[in-house]
Amino acid sequence: MQGAEAERQIATVLAAAVMGEREAMGESDAGVDALTSEQTARLAEWALVTRFDDLPQSVIRTSKSLILDFFGVAIAGSRHDAALAGLNLVRELGGDPRATVLGTGYRTSMVNAALVNGISAHILDFDDTHIPTVLHPTAPIMSAGLAVCEARGRSGPDLIRAHAMAVELSSRVSLAIYPEHYDAGWHMSGTTGTIGAAAAAALLEDVNHRQFVQVLGIAATQASGHREQFGAMTKALHVGKAASNGILASLLGARGFTAAPDSLQGRRGMFAVMSPSSRPNALVAGIGKDWEIARVGIKPYACGVVTHAPMDALRRLRTERGVQPDQVETIELRVNPLVTELTGKREPRTGLEGKFSVTFCAAIAMIDGVAGPQQFTDSAVQRPEVVALRDRIHIVPDGGIGHSQAIAIAYLKDGSAIMIEVTAASGTPENPLSDEERHEKFVALTEPVLGTQGATRVKALVESLDALTSVDALIAAAIR
Amino acid sequence: MQGAEAERQIATVLAAAVMGEREAMGESDAGVDALTSEQTARLAEWALVTRFDDLPQSVIRTSKSLILDFFGVAIAGSRHDAALAGLNLVRELGGDPRATVLGTGYRTSMVNAALVNGISAHILDFDDTHIPTVLHPTAPIMSAGLAVCEARGRSGPDLIRAHAMAVELSSRVSLAIYPEHYDAGWHMSGTTGTIGAAAAAALLEDVNHRQFVQVLGIAATQASGHREQFGAMTKALHVGKAASNGILASLLGARGFTAAPDSLQGRRGMFAVMSPSSRPNALVAGIGKDWEIARVGIKPYACGVVTHAPMDALRRLRTERGVQPDQVETIELRVNPLVTELTGKREPRTGLEGKFSVTFCAAIAMIDGVAGPQQFTDSAVQRPEVVALRDRIHIVPDGGIGHSQAIAIAYLKDGSAIMIEVTAASGTPENPLSDEERHEKFVALTEPVLGTQGATRVKALVESLDALTSVDALIAAAIR
Repeated sequence: MQGAEAERQIATVLAAAVMGEREAMGESDAGVDALTSEQTARLAEWALVTRFDDLPQSVIRTSKSLILDFFGVAIAGSRHDAALAGLNLVRELGGDPRATVLGTGYRTSMVNAALVNGISAHILDFDDTHIPTVLHPTAPIMSAGLAVCEARGRSGPDLIRAHAMAVELSSRVSLAIYPEHYDAGWHMSGTTGTIGAAAAAALLEDVNHRQFVQVLGIAATQASGHREQFGAMTKALHVGKAASNGILASLLGARGFTAAPDSLQGRRGMFAVMSPSSRPNALVAGIGKDWEIARVGIKPYACGVVTHAPMDALRRLRTERGVQPDQVETIELRVNPLVTELTGKREPRTGLEGKFSVTFCAAIAMIDGVAGPQQFTDSAVQRPEVVALRDRIHIVPDGGIGHSQAIAIAYLKDGSAIMIEVTAASGTPENPLSDEERHEKFVALTEPVLGTQGATRVKALVESLDALTSVDALIAAAIR
Repeated sequence: MQGAEAERQIATVLAAAVMGEREAMGESDAGVDALTSEQTARLAEWALVTRFDDLPQSVIRTSKSLILDFFGVAIAGSRHDAALAGLNLVRELGGDPRATVLGTGYRTSMVNAALVNGISAHILDFDDTHIPTVLHPTAPIMSAGLAVCEARGRSGPDLIRAHAMAVELSSRVSLAIYPEHYDAGWHMSGTTGTIGAAAAAALLEDVNHRQFVQVLGIAATQASGHREQFGAMTKALHVGKAASNGILASLLGARGFTAAPDSLQGRRGMFAVMSPSSRPNALVAGIGKDWEIARVGIKPYACGVVTHAPMDALRRLRTERGVQPDQVETIELRVNPLVTELTGKREPRTGLEGKFSVTFCAAIAMIDGVAGPQQFTDSAVQRPEVVALRDRIHIVPDGGIGHSQAIAIAYLKDGSAIMIEVTAASGTPENPLSDEERHEKFVALTEPVLGTQGATRVKALVESLDALTSVDALIAAAIR
């Protein structure tokens, strides 16, 4: 706690210094357009002036664990049909070989590599989550950032700083418009994910203040992705496009391409157009002090994050209370209403749809105890014993239960009933995965593609990322 | 009129045949997902089964005149800083040389060429307009379609058919959500323009029914572009991205990449997410009978379409009534409220901003009598005599005046007043440009880039496009 307190004090001093610098320069000298709203301008400046050495150790540590998780999901995802379709696409389009498609040795342009890596990193629905806004920040950010880092020959600390600051930036943009924006049907990782990807790319491109605000504007107006696509490959395309559009924004902004001065907060800008209401102060409240990266969770299960508490509940019914699936008459699952809204598919037809069926997810959690990619293939979703249990699970939406909570009541054939209450789903900041669980997740995802040696090497290199002068060795380890 | 009547009868028979065919096949055999809403499915099928030989002659004629106008604006636009930034960007990214950037000899991937051509075609704000919805259909459609046509070696009639059907498709999607979608702050040419670009690309790619619906879905969820960007280079990027995203959707859909079955009309699909309300019947009402392409106007002035009626009014004050700018005390311009909403900038700082200042536009129409790219440079916008007249023009929004109408009352220094009423702006279907005016526009745009011979050659080839087995000669003529 002393360390955390010290960090907080340093951050406060730093934030004050940033603001002082901004005032000392004056708006015109700072190069930021006077028509840019204050919160956008301040957030952008803070992101620009914060260097790797300014980051608290806890932020660096968390950043590295999220980057490792990204390599895991992207390498495993590279074998999915959606990623292979993306790879075939960029092979046809061609591009100057400057950046690598993870899990493969294929090198192509930055935007092409980012497109495919973004699809790979999100197609398993297994990448990290900014719990307060359900943004999946690292997949778009790292898909863009890694490509630029490789192409520009930037260092490990450069990449960590770009990732960490882009997480802050995209999380804060998300906070400014969540939940209204999400409730309207937007997929955060496609929309605010584009902002994160652009920020990471631009921080690695070394743009100036004015260009950085322009880059964010060029990104904001490209933000897209509808929740209708949940359960289809196109959901992952949202993240691939967020990553490649983010790089495009960065490269154009660095070339003097102009966006409107107030693209986020202007009268017809991103916030006004894409959200019924917004809270711009969320962009800057507590910057340099409250780190949003601390609220990013690593997923234990390869499916929609709101299913995780119900899945914990059914898994624990078996592991803690010894209930076997065939003893169950019915199970009542009390969950937040958003759970059925997002994952209410009763009879999923494909593996991807299975990720959006809370009853299917809960059933496999009880039967298999794990929920990795192998639980979500098109054939696995039809397993008779899973379907039989799935159809005996009844969902009761309950506004009094939080997004990361659930209550399961199992009514057994012998007439008894057993209740399990989950107060914080595994993978949330309140109940994070242990080091061992994260290690197991990473190994299970990467060994089938890279082998044991390759997986070990990627992990070791990410863990020493803050000491690497180049990411070339890491990327070389992350291909088959 | 007999010809038009005959065309209408043929179209009705054709539409009935299409519907009969669909019914005969049954939804499952047709390959369209049963979860796709009827209007989307019917529109997609109609676009797919309508061949070049099915098109009425008037549609082919209009299509060719819009395609010629596209070549004009894209070739001239290729010299703008925004297009040059786009060209430098795709040069850095690289790509298999399959498609040409107009106005230059540079060949690159289809998506890259479409990106730059889309920027070029829209950066002058001089491309065509679907008057009922202010969609600028041809720039995204042709930027995508031409690239695919060249790369796939398709014919002139293939291109005309793709253009014509994509105009119908994107106009009808626009009609289904206009004006609510536009009023919410979306730039139609970026949003429904993506649908048009994807449709054109897919029709030239020869996808099947199921794939075509998937392509439209992959396009719909990428739709983006905020009106905040009006007056910045990024407005043109919306069109470049619509074109390249449309090709991406087509190539992915053709590879079996899956989108949600009801991406347009589904509960969290494009219509629901991007528009407060929608009229899905607009997708199909009168298809094969009422051609939306007939409501696409060619612009006489290189600026926002709603400024055109006021510009006509001030031009005519001088040409018809002999009023000289220095005789004017003040001018009252009564216009639809949308005119000030869209083009209300009082003191434009750049040429691009000048296009969104109705007072500036009206002033140059009176002083210069024309409004081409040379009126909208960054220096031209500061001309003292223009600024002096601009600041004597007062706008009175009037809900009783249509988008394409205006009333100007000039109060002269001698105490007299002169009124001009414009009932249909030049360039609208009710008051189209003459052949000579269209020719003059094309020549003025292309001669500075291609020279007289080149311009003449492009025009001749577009006029014979329905007889060309390849577009290679046309593209060769359209580069410097």
